[in-house]
Amino acid sequence: MRIIYITLFYFSLLLSYASYATSVNDFCVADLQLPNTPSGYPCKSETNVTVDDFLFSDFVPRNTIDPFNVRLTTAFVTSLPGLNGLGISAARGDFGLNGTVPMHFHPDANELLIVVKGQLTAGFITPTKVDLKTVKPGDSLVIPKGLLHFGVNTDVGNAIASAFFSSSNPKMEILDYLLFGNDLSTSIIANPTLLDVSQIIKLKAQFRGSG
Amino acid sequence: MRIIYITLFYFSLLLSYASYATSVNDFCVADLQLPNTPSGYPCKSETNVTVDDFLFSDFVPRNTIDPFNVRLTTAFVTSLPGLNGLGISAARGDFGLNGTVPMHFHPDANELLIVVKGQLTAGFITPTKVDLKTVKPGDSLVIPKGLLHFGVNTDVGNAIASAFFSSSNPKMEILDYLLFGNDLSTSIIANPTLLDVSQIIKLKAQFRGSG
Amino acid sequence: MRIIYITLFYFSLLLSYASYATSVNDFCVADLQLPNTPSGYPCKSETNVTVDDFLFSDFVPRNTIDPFNVRLTTAFVTSLPGLNGLGISAARGDFGLNGTVPMHFHPDANELLIVVKGQLTAGFITPTKVDLKTVKPGDSLVIPKGLLHFGVNTDVGNAIASAFFSSSNPKMEILDYLLFGNDLSTSIIANPTLLDVSQIIKLKAQFRGSG
Amino acid sequence: MRIIYITLFYFSLLLSYASYATSVNDFCVADLQLPNTPSGYPCKSETNVTVDDFLFSDFVPRNTIDPFNVRLTTAFVTSLPGLNGLGISAARGDFGLNGTVPMHFHPDANELLIVVKGQLTAGFITPTKVDLKTVKPGDSLVIPKGLLHFGVNTDVGNAIASAFFSSSNPKMEILDYLLFGNDLSTSIIANPTLLDVSQIIKLKAQFRGSG
Amino acid sequence: MRIIYITLFYFSLLLSYASYATSVNDFCVADLQLPNTPSGYPCKSETNVTVDDFLFSDFVPRNTIDPFNVRLTTAFVTSLPGLNGLGISAARGDFGLNGTVPMHFHPDANELLIVVKGQLTAGFITPTKVDLKTVKPGDSLVIPKGLLHFGVNTDVGNAIASAFFSSSNPKMEILDYLLFGNDLSTSIIANPTLLDVSQIIKLKAQFRGSG
Amino acid sequence: MRIIYITLFYFSLLLSYASYATSVNDFCVADLQLPNTPSGYPCKSETNVTVDDFLFSDFVPRNTIDPFNVRLTTAFVTSLPGLNGLGISAARGDFGLNGTVPMHFHPDANELLIVVKGQLTAGFITPTKVDLKTVKPGDSLVIPKGLLHFGVNTDVGNAIASAFFSSSNPKMEILDYLLFGNDLSTSIIANPTLLDVSQIIKLKAQFRGSG
Repeated sequence: MRIIYITLFYFSLLLSYASYATSVNDFCVADLQLPNTPSGYPCKSETNVTVDDFLFSDFVPRNTIDPFNVRLTTAFVTSLPGLNGLGISAARGDFGLNGTVPMHFHPDANELLIVVKGQLTAGFITPTKVDLKTVKPGDSLVIPKGLLHFGVNTDVGNAIASAFFSSSNPKMEILDYLLFGNDLSTSIIANPTLLDVSQIIKLKAQFRGSG
Repeated sequence: MRIIYITLFYFSLLLSYASYATSVNDFCVADLQLPNTPSGYPCKSETNVTVDDFLFSDFVPRNTIDPFNVRLTTAFVTSLPGLNGLGISAARGDFGLNGTVPMHFHPDANELLIVVKGQLTAGFITPTKVDLKTVKPGDSLVIPKGLLHFGVNTDVGNAIASAFFSSSNPKMEILDYLLFGNDLSTSIIANPTLLDVSQIIKLKAQFRGSG
Repeated sequence: MRIIYITLFYFSLLLSYASYATSVNDFCVADLQLPNTPSGYPCKSETNVTVDDFLFSDFVPRNTIDPFNVRLTTAFVTSLPGLNGLGISAARGDFGLNGTVPMHFHPDANELLIVVKGQLTAGFITPTKVDLKTVKPGDSLVIPKGLLHFGVNTDVGNAIASAFFSSSNPKMEILDYLLFGNDLSTSIIANPTLLDVSQIIKLKAQFRGSG
Repeated sequence: MRIIYITLFYFSLLLSYASYATSVNDFCVADLQLPNTPSGYPCKSETNVTVDDFLFSDFVPRNTIDPFNVRLTTAFVTSLPGLNGLGISAARGDFGLNGTVPMHFHPDANELLIVVKGQLTAGFITPTKVDLKTVKPGDSLVIPKGLLHFGVNTDVGNAIASAFFSSSNPKMEILDYLLFGNDLSTSIIANPTLLDVSQIIKLKAQFRGSG
Repeated sequence: MRIIYITLFYFSLLLSYASYATSVNDFCVADLQLPNTPSGYPCKSETNVTVDDFLFSDFVPRNTIDPFNVRLTTAFVTSLPGLNGLGISAARGDFGLNGTVPMHFHPDANELLIVVKGQLTAGFITPTKVDLKTVKPGDSLVIPKGLLHFGVNTDVGNAIASAFFSSSNPKMEILDYLLFGNDLSTSIIANPTLLDVSQIIKLKAQFRGSG
Repeated sequence: MRIIYITLFYFSLLLSYASYATSVNDFCVADLQLPNTPSGYPCKSETNVTVDDFLFSDFVPRNTIDPFNVRLTTAFVTSLPGLNGLGISAARGDFGLNGTVPMHFHPDANELLIVVKGQLTAGFITPTKVDLKTVKPGDSLVIPKGLLHFGVNTDVGNAIASAFFSSSNPKMEILDYLLFGNDLSTSIIANPTLLDVSQIIKLKAQFRGSG
């Protein structure tokens, strides 16, 4: 009887594979050419998906955040399309001496920071609590969504950290870039921050803002 | 050394801006020309987004819900495309004398009703509780998703209310329109509602239903 | 005064219908020709939607899962496009004598299994608990997402069961198909499973795997 | 070397089981004695969980929805605590001659209706479309969340249907019970529905409403 | 026969009411005495719920945000427990002459701002775009989650605005309070913001910060 | 006038801090003593929260997964309570020579694997695709939720990898432990897997299963 099973099996397996192929949505690799949606990019056709859509091979120091002496590399959905719809991503920070990830927040992503080399002083800020920690290799620090935070290399040499995010495409809102790096006018900034006009002008010069 | 930083900074800022521009998804303004998805409309290209996509300038009395002597204006994603994917929207109701928002429910949105002018009697209905309140300026009333509710102007003049919803595109299911405003046949209506045939015919005439 | 109301009503109803038509998203029937997104398929234009998009008329025995003597029929979004975005779907299993739904799991869907005819022995497996039950007509069994489970016809005749899922497009990961039905090489399988090479080769022959 | 592995293995397995036991949240069976939360009931301690928390053995005709000649049985989280947090549940309807599930809606759950025996005429209602279908064994009908719907036994004998929901605890809002079964006053009902006072009084008598 | 139905009906209605009472979770009014959860507060027992849990009667000017000449009143879950789990809330801002809602962001809530009286200049800030608008009565402005924004009264008299949020308990992170109102040390602030030490000391004095 | 502002400011700031303290839910640190819920553990009282709730200082090799020559350490919510409700967590794997993370899947979490030292051969398995990659330091690999996967140290020395998950408490379902490490009887296993009885008995001995 087994032989009959086997024969049927070969035939029906084709059918069931075909049926599973259409009904299975194991992943949704981003087709970055199509317009984004609130839930992420439309999916590439499965026939065009390859394992390389899931691999990021370039976690080397890259974009400098000047003048803060830090370089950032990001594995977000736009460079690692297999992350699409998965709610996870990563970044690497390479800190020079006194290097600092400037004061910023991620409105849409929780972060888990892991120190790989050296030592950072890091923490997040709430109106009533300021929690700073010296974070070393083997330590990791949770930074909940939307809390203002920063990290400073307080080691005698370079430092390296990895950060993981609960979003495939987290936003990084850097205070100095927002306040001093665009065309927001000085008086508009002064009013809701109470910063001195001279301070604003000085930092606009540094961060290339106009207005 | 500062001068070198600054120089590098100008260069790298360009890079990092470019990099942030691709990785940041601050918002997803609806491209209303493309097909909707379960999570909302696809996003307009960021280069076509303007501040006017986030501004609704037309909160004036508009669509009359007759014969109930109420006019409704809605700031939903279809008229305010910046709301796309944000899970929030608003409406304004202008009530004439005895004006009534008819019995209805929003299956997909919680509501917060705020009286701006005059006085409404409003409430929601559950099988075991009927909670009516006289709601005045400065009051606001919560109406959880899917509960049958209504509002009547019980003031001596006109009344105005704002309503806020936990959806960018809330549905408003008005009982009379559903039961008497389409081509559902009288006998089909009578069976699962136990309404009298004469009552159904009378209201079909009023609400333009056929069938 | 009523006559005026009525007149206004006819006019304004047209307006409000038009306005509701644009703002209402009662459902999102899948346009299966467009690329999928993480939240489901884009919606068909409402003017093309018909009641048949919501009806599945073909719950008859269909794809055989051989050599397990079971036939499966699925009402997933790909055959019932009205399910798009709704997070629900169904399947029917027809079990021959000793028919077995092989060891599998649904990573993205909880399941509710209802026996319609006959008797199944079914259960799910955790590292510390194995919960087997004899399930009869009138019984239903919950199988939480991601738990390994199976079902065996332990009746003297055929058996029929319905299964319901908390996803519009649930995945079904069958162990034997994953391990022995593709081109994964025998040594690669042996290492992380500790299965004997002879066992792997035997099952690869049965499940048509290469490698 | 293998012997050492095995020894270590027995020891470490205990450790890893312990560690997995605490870190694994395979399911969250409802502790119905504790207060509910917006995401569902708190979980029973895993040591008190048994397979019976996942089994519902009582899918027999139960609560009569009078005077509609239909009996409903529900497998919701309150009777099947293993459903807690899983977003799925089921009901069974037994229809007598002309039996009718009265006009109602589920604000928080999509529905998949499957006819098991006999024949139902069923459908859902939108302001512009009324989609009625005769649904027979082997057919299933999708009813999206919040749409007004009903089902009538149009067979010559009894009929049975199963319904599946995308919620562990779906609400069923029956129009007649909401409008005529509580203490909402007749005049309050008349105003936002335009039903005749005599009609309301008649149905209040039938549905035991006061006010 | 009708009389029998009615009799049965009275009896069975009791049963079905009881059954619906346990299975229906129409709302989840916060029990603020119990510990919060990630999805909101546990629900008050339904027998203790009253209509007043859904009504907020105190939308009058309240907490002053000094020295910015603005008063804020919030209808969040902690003062309006019926909002629990509903993902919506509201606030009212009363602006004196030149009154300003200081630079802030809501990491967990989208906002819809509606001007009730007077005129505000408001906008949100991104690294590449600054979108300011003069917003008047009848206008409303969308402010997506996590974007830095502010509002200034640019009318000749007082101004009033309502704001609606896509969270029952939105956070308001005010830059000055975070940077200058706690015990974060001056040098720690200076490093990741590049603000001058003298500026920090001056604002710490104004915002009561130590450190 | 400034002096008056300041005075008011000190007074009102107390008020607004108090008000913000109650309305702000910046985070929800797990109170592990209370029963879990479907959305995570109830929150510790904010007054008991310290920065140490957000810090994990113990990312050293720990639980051995024998006989696979791999040690795993997990920073999940049960050891890092600040992760509660945040949808993110991490693990570290230390691979000995030929060390292998055995065939497993995470039904509720997407994974991002980053190789820190050495070289792994890793991949995930679908019915139609097997995607294996050699992953080196600086590489990272995406493993979507529910896909069967494994990792083998193919370097000449030890290897170290970090893994990040889109869940605060991800499940790890190891095939061998599920099939051979509990009291599931040999015949029950054989039927839905088609494994030979002798193979099952051999692996039950190795994985300490009974039955």
